[in-house]
Amino acid sequence: MVRINEFQGILKKKRIDFFISVNIDFAIFDYDMAYFSGYNGVGALIIPKNKRPFLIVSKMEVKKARESGLRVYSPPKRKRLFEFIREKVKQNNIRGKKIGVNKEEFTLLLRDYLKKNFKKARLVDLRKEPYGLREQKTKEEIKIIKKGCRISDDILRKCFKNFKKFKTEAEVKAFLEYEAKKKNCGMAFPTIVASGVNSSKAHHNTEDTKLKKGFCVIDFGIRYRNYCTDTTRTIYLGKPSKKEVEIYNFLLSIQRNVIKEIKLGKKCSELFIYVKKGLGEYSRYFTHGLGHGFGVKIHEFPDLTEKSKHKVKENSIFTIEPGIYLKNFGIRIEDDVLVTKDKVEILTKVGKVLKIFDF
Amino acid sequence: MVRINEFQGILKKKRIDFFISVNIDFAIFDYDMAYFSGYNGVGALIIPKNKRPFLIVSKMEVKKARESGLRVYSPPKRKRLFEFIREKVKQNNIRGKKIGVNKEEFTLLLRDYLKKNFKKARLVDLRKEPYGLREQKTKEEIKIIKKGCRISDDILRKCFKNFKKFKTEAEVKAFLEYEAKKKNCGMAFPTIVASGVNSSKAHHNTEDTKLKKGFCVIDFGIRYRNYCTDTTRTIYLGKPSKKEVEIYNFLLSIQRNVIKEIKLGKKCSELFIYVKKGLGEYSRYFTHGLGHGFGVKIHEFPDLTEKSKHKVKENSIFTIEPGIYLKNFGIRIEDDVLVTKDKVEILTKVGKVLKIFDF
Repeated sequence: MVRINEFQGILKKKRIDFFISVNIDFAIFDYDMAYFSGYNGVGALIIPKNKRPFLIVSKMEVKKARESGLRVYSPPKRKRLFEFIREKVKQNNIRGKKIGVNKEEFTLLLRDYLKKNFKKARLVDLRKEPYGLREQKTKEEIKIIKKGCRISDDILRKCFKNFKKFKTEAEVKAFLEYEAKKKNCGMAFPTIVASGVNSSKAHHNTEDTKLKKGFCVIDFGIRYRNYCTDTTRTIYLGKPSKKEVEIYNFLLSIQRNVIKEIKLGKKCSELFIYVKKGLGEYSRYFTHGLGHGFGVKIHEFPDLTEKSKHKVKENSIFTIEPGIYLKNFGIRIEDDVLVTKDKVEILTKVGKVLKIFDF
Repeated sequence: MVRINEFQGILKKKRIDFFISVNIDFAIFDYDMAYFSGYNGVGALIIPKNKRPFLIVSKMEVKKARESGLRVYSPPKRKRLFEFIREKVKQNNIRGKKIGVNKEEFTLLLRDYLKKNFKKARLVDLRKEPYGLREQKTKEEIKIIKKGCRISDDILRKCFKNFKKFKTEAEVKAFLEYEAKKKNCGMAFPTIVASGVNSSKAHHNTEDTKLKKGFCVIDFGIRYRNYCTDTTRTIYLGKPSKKEVEIYNFLLSIQRNVIKEIKLGKKCSELFIYVKKGLGEYSRYFTHGLGHGFGVKIHEFPDLTEKSKHKVKENSIFTIEPGIYLKNFGIRIEDDVLVTKDKVEILTKVGKVLKIFDF
């Protein structure tokens, strides 16, 4: 139950009778539902502007949904979901003239069902507002993300300890995700393992290809209690040239320095520009943003790009991930940082000194 | 490129200028895109009623998208996706007055973008038509699903071989999914491992709970080259009572017998009713359908329920998965079967004689 009160404030201001999020596919992670309720399965979340919010889930899911602390209803057999929603909305004396939805997630089919049951309703897009709320984390959220980072750190360290037994990129990825699952964590995004020339692509699709000599970029994040983590380490397989070590250490010093530049209230674009300048002749090989906030979703506010309008806010958590992608290889170093009132804390603690493996 | 010609026939009949499917989230699997093109990443698929279909993907994805055999376009930097779609549609002399979408997948946000670029367009729901096409598999699809079942069989056998080292349900699940990933396969659905009293729930959420004495239901499916598999085996941890063995063997005989009842043209509801009758006094503990078709999606046609309107068709592939869920334990046995012109073939071949493990 994160920031439901603030969200209801937004609903009141916009005179929206209720917000609704519906998930009908167990394979989909409903960010709004997970954020506001903690429940992340199949079902519907209704947040009225001035009444108690509630969840509607199948009988099988009631126990899990109750952990949210919200009221939970379960439709009787053969009752259609949206008919039941209408009944419960009416029963709770909630108006249904102006309904908020997240247009990025709400499908045309759900809209049809909703319209059928709330004939006079006007739908209003509320996809940006939750992003705004989610930018500043609560104490509880910070605790969860810190714990997630500790779990992720342990998994990465274990991976490096076992590295010599891996033969393919897919094996490294499988190991990392296996360790996460054993700890009952999900994945924040598909793990990237990009070795040799593959490391020159910022978003290489890890496939069943043999590990290659040279730099190997590993971008890995877990989902622990609904919240993401996001770490990248670049290691070296074989014997690096002097030049390669130099470039790695150069990028590492920039990554460390820009973290020291983070201050409350600072423009995020300034951090990006600081890195661009620092990279000098390499700046044209830095082809993506410097970082991004994350939480229940892997890309949230703030945005650390050249044109970002965001400033560094209290209790925000974001990545710092400069990279250099040359023709034959690439390097990226990424940490998660937490900015509180009086300090900037690096949450991901796996060592960044270049790890070199026999190959 | 599966059944694109047939689908274009439907578009012509319905006078739909083109069908469009858009995926903007790498975490989502776009069934229509995967089915018709084989490409399953971020991008857009356009199938005009009487022109060559094409994919629109980012530069990073062009190589992968070309494997589809379709034409591939990539928008220049800073060009908005839907503007680019409009340009390409115009360039190819395709009308845009009546556009087909899958309303179950197409979001309100995508609708807004589409409407902005095709101002006079009317959107038509095409979510059911692909299901119809997908029910009967092509030779190539059958080959892929058979291979997927062989991979899945091997993984399950390896899991049973290693079973004594597992302590929690999550470890069993992690092992199965790890083996799938090592073979570069995805998951068809979240693996279920339900031991002891947990097995009495047909859809137990596997958590970090210790394995318990008694029956343990393992429901596992991989995604190999976009296509699902789906197998359930129930094993026993500890020493089963005579009664428990009897119930298991009773269910197994019903599962085996109903497979012998499958015939081309037979009503699927008849198969369901055959099992209900066979279960006798246990029939009220069989709380779900007998099975379902699958392909790129885990639930497709046909539906093997009491009220199903489907008949058994040539080259269809579906599950047969009767179950009994008592108060303290549950048992489910599930195979995938292929029905061709002259035979019914069981594709999942892991042994079904009750496996008993020391515990």
